[in-house]
Amino acid sequence: MSISKRFAELEHIRSALNEADADPGRIVMERMLSATEAEIAGRRTILAGTNNYLGLTFEPGILEASHQALREQGSGTTGSRMANGSFASHVALERSFAEFYEVPAAMIFSTGYQANLGILTGLLRAGDKVVIDAHSHASIYDGCRLSGADFFPFRHNDPEDLRKRLRRLGDDARGALVVTEGLYSMLGDIAPLAELLEVTEEFGAYLMVDEAHSLGVYGEQGRGVAEAAGILDRVDFITGTFSKSLGSMGGFCVSRHEQLNLLRYGSRPYIFTASSSPANIAAAHWALDHVRSHPELREKLWSNVAQLYSGLKDLGFRLGSAPSPVVAVRVDSHDEAARIWNELLASGVYVNLVVPPASPDGASLLRCSVSAGHSPEQIETIVAAFGEAISRTAFAGACCSG
Amino acid sequence: MSISKRFAELEHIRSALNEADADPGRIVMERMLSATEAEIAGRRTILAGTNNYLGLTFEPGILEASHQALREQGSGTTGSRMANGSFASHVALERSFAEFYEVPAAMIFSTGYQANLGILTGLLRAGDKVVIDAHSHASIYDGCRLSGADFFPFRHNDPEDLRKRLRRLGDDARGALVVTEGLYSMLGDIAPLAELLEVTEEFGAYLMVDEAHSLGVYGEQGRGVAEAAGILDRVDFITGTFSKSLGSMGGFCVSRHEQLNLLRYGSRPYIFTASSSPANIAAAHWALDHVRSHPELREKLWSNVAQLYSGLKDLGFRLGSAPSPVVAVRVDSHDEAARIWNELLASGVYVNLVVPPASPDGASLLRCSVSAGHSPEQIETIVAAFGEAISRTAFAGACCSG
Repeated sequence: MSISKRFAELEHIRSALNEADADPGRIVMERMLSATEAEIAGRRTILAGTNNYLGLTFEPGILEASHQALREQGSGTTGSRMANGSFASHVALERSFAEFYEVPAAMIFSTGYQANLGILTGLLRAGDKVVIDAHSHASIYDGCRLSGADFFPFRHNDPEDLRKRLRRLGDDARGALVVTEGLYSMLGDIAPLAELLEVTEEFGAYLMVDEAHSLGVYGEQGRGVAEAAGILDRVDFITGTFSKSLGSMGGFCVSRHEQLNLLRYGSRPYIFTASSSPANIAAAHWALDHVRSHPELREKLWSNVAQLYSGLKDLGFRLGSAPSPVVAVRVDSHDEAARIWNELLASGVYVNLVVPPASPDGASLLRCSVSAGHSPEQIETIVAAFGEAISRTAFAGACCSG
Repeated sequence: MSISKRFAELEHIRSALNEADADPGRIVMERMLSATEAEIAGRRTILAGTNNYLGLTFEPGILEASHQALREQGSGTTGSRMANGSFASHVALERSFAEFYEVPAAMIFSTGYQANLGILTGLLRAGDKVVIDAHSHASIYDGCRLSGADFFPFRHNDPEDLRKRLRRLGDDARGALVVTEGLYSMLGDIAPLAELLEVTEEFGAYLMVDEAHSLGVYGEQGRGVAEAAGILDRVDFITGTFSKSLGSMGGFCVSRHEQLNLLRYGSRPYIFTASSSPANIAAAHWALDHVRSHPELREKLWSNVAQLYSGLKDLGFRLGSAPSPVVAVRVDSHDEAARIWNELLASGVYVNLVVPPASPDGASLLRCSVSAGHSPEQIETIVAAFGEAISRTAFAGACCSG
């Protein structure tokens, strides 16, 4: 009975999305044309919703590194590193991450989701306490849940509320774990990391920062929001992904604690999974080196961010936060968001439609992710498409601020 | 305090492994030479512990398919399918899986671990009941735990114990989920699927079978143990991985219930993760087609299995079960297993060292995985190395049956 009830519940969700013509899951990229363009429904479409922040996925270098890994190491590892041993390329990538962050320890995982799951379930046991930002990614919630620890959300980006939660833990606050992200992927706002760290240290807790959307984007060397905040050497654990700025697939954790390496012996999402394929590892490694040696990529990205942000602002759109590579346009209703999203698609611009419960605070968002690979002309086209979409929607007035 | 205690606990595990020189995680494949050989510690080594059952990872076809995907689709998708849309290649691979299993629905996942996590957390809610074989893979235990459902292990491969557990559930048995594997990866024994299905149907429960180690290996068309048992059309959910016989990375689920597709709207490990990279998808797709069109690969594998199994049996080793692509040699102690494992490595043969708690029933195992890619000469070398290893160990007598 229970499974058939679950099917009925999910059918209800699917029908609602279908009726509103608001199901991003139905989109098929029929042909990829570049890092910023694909054919969708037979139409050449600009991609402004794929987290390809540095636009590296078609770089000759990343492709050549992947080709070489395939030729020399084959199509897959066919095993877990703890049971079957490590390919040298996996060990080398971990070394590069540790060097990049100037820390003694780095671990890589087969996906970004499994990186958060692996660190949280590796570190925490039943009865442990973990305090997480309420807007945390699903992989952070799932990792906490799977660990069996007691977890408590604090109000999004609110150091004072974090202090309150930690105080309530009493003696358990010492040695507890606090989890935040760098750049939040839905609204594009960044965490006040220096303040959050200060509170964390006040209680003798540990701080973990997920830089999934901020690696390669923030900080003088591209190490993320913690670097930009000047606290990199005081954060305990930094996690992130290969599947955004690095254009590959997989995840990582770096730590100033050499003991991070011990999680290899106690993190089930690390132990009981095949290690990443050689081509994925090679792509991530090439991209990491490229990020380190090409700061001008970040400059290009930020120049594109400025162009998109001011273009949309000038049109009167309400934007989610200060300029960042995630530019979230707030509209008043789910229906209106779906209508504009479809209009944009029809005019060859792909952004993300984000509606509750996926969006925070019940917001309906048209979420754009900016890429260093976008040309100024593409950004111009995106802005123009937004302008036309609202001029064609009945509720145009309602969606924009004065 | 809690995290530093956890570090101390893990340090204890690491030290014990190091002292016994029994840490498979320290092995580095310095250079891959083929699907069945690598350089380890500067020595040319035969790989008999990597789950590369069909030996496809260096096939010209699988490499060319991956190269082409890289050129045409780039190094990564940089997004989740539900948020960012699907590449056409992901949709096509799902269609091929559905066709292969002659079912209406197939879903693919970024890893095999996430396939089990995704299906279990997608199907089950808090309060639901799930009954799983006690020897189930970590991803099955973790999926049950994360789902919040009540889960109950039944005695390994024991239909009568399954019946007892389901009976205890009373009315809740109807619509509960029963989970088993096809081939168990540690002892190499297969599940009595026809009997387990019969019990499951008796109570009106659903059956899920994980064919991670049996896809491409069992069944007339290579669809796994369920096909070999003649019950393929009655199993509700079959999961599996790309990272063993298919030589890639990722996971899948097929189902005779079209509603499987609804899990796209409610499975967090599916929704909140980047989709697999184009090269991984292309490799898995090529391998799936190859499995379907080359039954002789399975014949080659089974001939290698027979040779290794009888060779080790003739030497007097106690083997875990009937012949299967996993040939597990039982020895009496952890120390003895470690000693033989190191001897094998020194003579250029790599197998898996499996000791408690990773092994079932407290066994100490030297686990061999056989590949269709092994030559008869390689199998002969493996058998000879085992023979020499026991003749050199002090406890030789203790490890073998008369």
